[in-house]
Amino acid sequence: MTEKQILLLPGPTPVPPQVALAMARPAINHRGPEFKALWEEVTAGLKEVFQTRSEVVILTASGTAGMEAAVVNLISPGEKVLAVTIGAFGERFVQICRAFDVEAEVLAFPYGRAADPEVIAERLAADSGHQIKAVLVQHNETSTGVLNDIRAISRARGNHPALLIVDSISGLAAADLPMDAWHVDVVIAGSQKALMLPPGLTMLAVNERAWQAAEKCTNKRFYLDIKKARSSGLKGQTPFTPAVSLLYGLRESLRLLREETLVGSFARHALMRDMVRAGVRSLGLDLLADDSVASPAVTAVCVPEGLKPADIITPLREKFGVVVAGGQGEVKDRVFRLGHLGYVSFNDIMAGLAALEAVLVDAGVPVTRGAAVAAAGAVLGEGTAR
Amino acid sequence: MTEKQILLLPGPTPVPPQVALAMARPAINHRGPEFKALWEEVTAGLKEVFQTRSEVVILTASGTAGMEAAVVNLISPGEKVLAVTIGAFGERFVQICRAFDVEAEVLAFPYGRAADPEVIAERLAADSGHQIKAVLVQHNETSTGVLNDIRAISRARGNHPALLIVDSISGLAAADLPMDAWHVDVVIAGSQKALMLPPGLTMLAVNERAWQAAEKCTNKRFYLDIKKARSSGLKGQTPFTPAVSLLYGLRESLRLLREETLVGSFARHALMRDMVRAGVRSLGLDLLADDSVASPAVTAVCVPEGLKPADIITPLREKFGVVVAGGQGEVKDRVFRLGHLGYVSFNDIMAGLAALEAVLVDAGVPVTRGAAVAAAGAVLGEGTAR
Repeated sequence: MTEKQILLLPGPTPVPPQVALAMARPAINHRGPEFKALWEEVTAGLKEVFQTRSEVVILTASGTAGMEAAVVNLISPGEKVLAVTIGAFGERFVQICRAFDVEAEVLAFPYGRAADPEVIAERLAADSGHQIKAVLVQHNETSTGVLNDIRAISRARGNHPALLIVDSISGLAAADLPMDAWHVDVVIAGSQKALMLPPGLTMLAVNERAWQAAEKCTNKRFYLDIKKARSSGLKGQTPFTPAVSLLYGLRESLRLLREETLVGSFARHALMRDMVRAGVRSLGLDLLADDSVASPAVTAVCVPEGLKPADIITPLREKFGVVVAGGQGEVKDRVFRLGHLGYVSFNDIMAGLAALEAVLVDAGVPVTRGAAVAAAGAVLGEGTAR
Repeated sequence: MTEKQILLLPGPTPVPPQVALAMARPAINHRGPEFKALWEEVTAGLKEVFQTRSEVVILTASGTAGMEAAVVNLISPGEKVLAVTIGAFGERFVQICRAFDVEAEVLAFPYGRAADPEVIAERLAADSGHQIKAVLVQHNETSTGVLNDIRAISRARGNHPALLIVDSISGLAAADLPMDAWHVDVVIAGSQKALMLPPGLTMLAVNERAWQAAEKCTNKRFYLDIKKARSSGLKGQTPFTPAVSLLYGLRESLRLLREETLVGSFARHALMRDMVRAGVRSLGLDLLADDSVASPAVTAVCVPEGLKPADIITPLREKFGVVVAGGQGEVKDRVFRLGHLGYVSFNDIMAGLAALEAVLVDAGVPVTRGAAVAAAGAVLGEGTAR
């Protein structure tokens, strides 16, 4: 029965059965009235999740294409951005910039730490000529399990006109990010995370300041052109054939999110994080990130002395059907990542921790049997989402 | 019951129920062994459909991104291509070239006609300096319902080294295109056509000559980088998160195609085309394309004097649930398009023709009731796929 898996990944999320069945609806003409109604419902629903009045565009592609779309639509070749990196996805933003001749000044913080808003404030204050056109930063850094303080980073801009472009692919709906209230200019999301869908869609919420930048941007783009997407979207269409089955799934998952409420989803993710952290610590393992910056979507756990990540990941999958992720970037060989993102229940967390405990026992790590579930259960009983 | 639709579109195809259910399988880790097995099965299956030994890459995006990928991976800024256009999708190739600073010399043939291989041969023969790096052409032009003779176009190159890049998004598996045998360098496909899937995947089969061009190409790309896709693919992965649910669907649709056989699929599409053409003609309507170049995927039908396309398309959908497409490009106001592409049966064609007949009667067009079904039935009875 190990094919009955529990995915504890930082994406893809398990897909709710009602979402999977919604995707099995018969095909429709994406140039017809049925599509227009679907489109209007999902874009309105997404605005609630992005907490914005700005336009949201949906592209048929995965999250990296959303990051690329933010760069090629908003920053011209030769222009400079401040790329704030705290892990592998921050580094990906840098790679994308460089692929399209955008100068990325990298402000790197160590793996496991959050970005320091004061350092960002200082750098921007020193840029009196406003050479920096945008600040690129992750909301939730998937590779390290660290949540950045986007509100503070937004405030750190002061009067600097740089756009704030936030990759919230693994953050949106798992952690609060009120785009308009926090004056974020662009937020990027992906379908296969807290939105509880399979991969294949990326969404960008783009405010008026950013649309003005898109008008002036000379970088080349065609398929990922968000201006084309906006003007088609206003007519209830997409410029190119959209992934209709995923949009049907999105309509259903937005209904589920509305039922849980955004605040409920944030609280569930925070509580799962706290259960995981308490459970893992009770097994004597170290966590990569401090509590103060810990992600509600994924927890990077340090592998005990003498073991490699595969010594934990492989038996978890093969013996228990519990699927966790390896490390990425410079902590690749030191951590495994236990996700708690999307359609994951408290029961899934308990079962995952029990399996982890058993795997550690088998590997000869001295752990107290039952400790992880007891610790997580205590957290759950108190309901103490921070 | 008009919500029980019959899609007679040049994409998206109706999706077979078994494919829809396959897409509802539980999510998997796209970095794990389950994915590798899935990936290897679908790429091997696609090679059979492309009739090639070359590598096939699958990108999470729709067909236009596949066209863009062919341009940005193979043609450098400032280089020239010969863009052979016979309709709106040929024009899209030109737009894509120009968006990425590729010089597109347009060789345009009138809407409704196929490209003349002799004219292409002359143009290439005159290019003694080999300035033309590639010939871009549609296999099946979706906007006009015309099939180009790719074998003849390939031969027209003679000794000219230009790559032959064929958009077969609406052609693959509907009409024969043995890539290796016909010396085609790149073939582009899309999921929502004869592959019988929802939209969201585009596939490119790329031969060795084209991979060499990709090595030298200086155009900018990141998400659509086919070299990255190839090197990840050889490890059973994708560089960026793939649309896993669509890949599960693809596995199932490839099984269905294998069961029907490619030759069977070509014959079915050709027979549906002949049924439609006989049926429509028996109603006194004109066809945009001649028999000799008629597409097996879609038939563009001229609207009778005094009517607009919407006068036919809207009642077909609203009264009968039969969904056909409007025109595109310069014939937008003169034709509607009756698709017979993908998961479409002879019964669907019969029902669609019966509905068309009824709509024409209602619109006051003088038609003989029963004529279309009688004519199509005669074709079907003879099984005379040309």
